[in-house]
Amino acid sequence: MKFTERFIQMEETIKNLQAQICSGLESQDQEKFQKDVWTRAEGGGGLTCVIQDGSVFEKGGVNISSVHGILPKDMAVRLHTHEQEFGACGLSLVIHPFSPRLPTTHMNIRYFEMADGNFWYGGGIDLTPYYPHLEDFKHFHKTVKSACDQVKIGLYDTYKAECDLYFRITHRNEMRGIGGVFFDYLKNDGQSHFSLVKRLGDCFLDAYLPIISKRKNEVFDQNDKQFQLVRRGRYVEFNLVYDRGTLFGLKTNGRIESILMSLPKEVMFLYDWQPNPGSPHEKMMQYYQPMDYIKD
Amino acid sequence: MKFTERFIQMEETIKNLQAQICSGLESQDQEKFQKDVWTRAEGGGGLTCVIQDGSVFEKGGVNISSVHGILPKDMAVRLHTHEQEFGACGLSLVIHPFSPRLPTTHMNIRYFEMADGNFWYGGGIDLTPYYPHLEDFKHFHKTVKSACDQVKIGLYDTYKAECDLYFRITHRNEMRGIGGVFFDYLKNDGQSHFSLVKRLGDCFLDAYLPIISKRKNEVFDQNDKQFQLVRRGRYVEFNLVYDRGTLFGLKTNGRIESILMSLPKEVMFLYDWQPNPGSPHEKMMQYYQPMDYIKD
Repeated sequence: MKFTERFIQMEETIKNLQAQICSGLESQDQEKFQKDVWTRAEGGGGLTCVIQDGSVFEKGGVNISSVHGILPKDMAVRLHTHEQEFGACGLSLVIHPFSPRLPTTHMNIRYFEMADGNFWYGGGIDLTPYYPHLEDFKHFHKTVKSACDQVKIGLYDTYKAECDLYFRITHRNEMRGIGGVFFDYLKNDGQSHFSLVKRLGDCFLDAYLPIISKRKNEVFDQNDKQFQLVRRGRYVEFNLVYDRGTLFGLKTNGRIESILMSLPKEVMFLYDWQPNPGSPHEKMMQYYQPMDYIKD
Repeated sequence: MKFTERFIQMEETIKNLQAQICSGLESQDQEKFQKDVWTRAEGGGGLTCVIQDGSVFEKGGVNISSVHGILPKDMAVRLHTHEQEFGACGLSLVIHPFSPRLPTTHMNIRYFEMADGNFWYGGGIDLTPYYPHLEDFKHFHKTVKSACDQVKIGLYDTYKAECDLYFRITHRNEMRGIGGVFFDYLKNDGQSHFSLVKRLGDCFLDAYLPIISKRKNEVFDQNDKQFQLVRRGRYVEFNLVYDRGTLFGLKTNGRIESILMSLPKEVMFLYDWQPNPGSPHEKMMQYYQPMDYIKD
C-alpha cells in the first residue's frame, strides 16, 4: 500500500509536535525527556519520550507511533471490514505532575487509513485536576474552544459533550477529570479534520503550560497529597476498565510500556474514602461532573 | 423462591468462617477488623469486615454476602437462561500485608442457585508473594492440596492448572502470583462440591498464618518495598482488566467499595521497570510462571 498524502502530512505533523511539546514541558522541569525508539515486527514503530521523577513532572510520556501492515483479524472485525492493508499514526501524551496543585493532562491525535480508501481522524485533550482552581479550568476549556472555533464554530460544544460522556467512570457515576474535547471516526472531510487535530496539537502548550508555571511553587499539605493519590486511583480505574485505546492495545499485543505509561507513578486505593467535609477536596468533587466552563 | 438446604448450609458456613478467619488474622495484628453491614435494594445484603493500616496488614477485607431476587437481565444472558429467581452467597477475602516479605492472599467460595433447580459452587485460593521464600510457597500449595485430597485425589491437579490459567496477566505473559486452586460452575454433586468449598475455607488459616507468623519480623529494604509496590501495580492490572468477578460487579451495579476492597492501598507504576540483575526480585519473577510446588 502506498501511503496517502494525508498520512505523510500527519506523520510530519506529529513528529514536529512531539519535539515542540517535549521542549515546552522541559522548560518547566530540571529533567529532560528520555527517548526510546521502538519498532513493530509487523511494520512501523515509534518514538516514546518519557520523563520520570522530574522536579515538576513525576511521570509523563509523549509518544508518537506510525504503524502499517495487514489489519489484525480482531481489529478488522471491530471495524466491520476485511483483513486489508492499513496505516495508522498518532501522538499520545499523558503528564502526571508531582504536586497535587498541578493537574494531570492527556492529549491524543490520530489518523487511520486502509487500502480500500477509507480513512478517519480521532483525538482529544482533557484535564484531570486535583484542586478546585476554577480559573485554570476556564483557561483550559477556553483555549481548547478557541482552537476548535478556528476550524468551525460549534465543534467545541459537540466534542466537549462527547468528552464528558467518554471519560466517565460509570461505576462511580463521576468523570475522570474535568473533560475537554473528544472525537473519533471523523470521516469524509480530510482537510477540515486534519485542521482540527493540527490546531488541537498546537494549542496544547497554551492550554497547559500557563497553569504549571503559575501553580508549580504553590505549597500543598498531606491532605492535598492524599486526595491526589486517591484520585489517581480513579484514573487507573478508568484507564484499565473503560479506556478503549488501552484495552485494545493490551489485547492486541501492543507495546505494553507505551500503553501503560499513562498510569501515574504513585497511587492509593482506600476503602470507602470520602473527602473531609468543607475541604477544598470536597469542593473539587463537584467538578467531576459535566460543567460549563465557557460562560462567565 | 424457597432457599434449598444447600443454600442455608452455605450461608451458615460462610458466616462462621468469616468470624473464624477474622479472629485468626487479628491474632497477628494490633488492629481489629471494622464491620460494615450493607443491604441490597433488590434483596439480601452482606457484612464487610475491613482492616486498614494495621501493624501487619496494610489493607484487607473479609466479606460475606447473600443476595437473592430476580436474575438481572445481563446476568441471565451470560448464564444462558431466562430472568428467574436466584439466590447467591459467598465469602471473599483479600489480605495485603505492609511488609514486602509477607505475601498477599485471596480466597473466595461461592454458591449459586436458581428457581429452575440449577445450582453450582465455585471458588479458589491463591497466594501473591513478593519475595522468593520457596519453602513458604510449598507450604501453601501442600496445605491446599491436602484439603482437596480429603475430598478427592486429583482435584488439586485439575484446579491448580485452572488457577495457573485464570490468574494470568495475559498482556505481560506472567501470573499475578504463584497460584493455588481455582474452580467454577461445579454442578451435579452438591455434597462433594460443598465439601470442597468447606475444606478450602477451613484450610485458609493453616495455609496462610504460619507464613505471616514466621516472616512478620523480617527486615526489608527499599528495593524489597519498591518491588512489592510495582507487583501490586500488576495486581491492579489483573483485577481491573481480567478478573471476571470484579468486572461483573462493576458493570452490574454491585457494591463498589466491597468489590474494589481487593485493591492494595499503596501502588506504583513505573515505566519499563526491570528487577536488578542477580537480586532476589529477579529470582522472584521466575515464580510468576506455573510451577510444581508439590514434588520433593
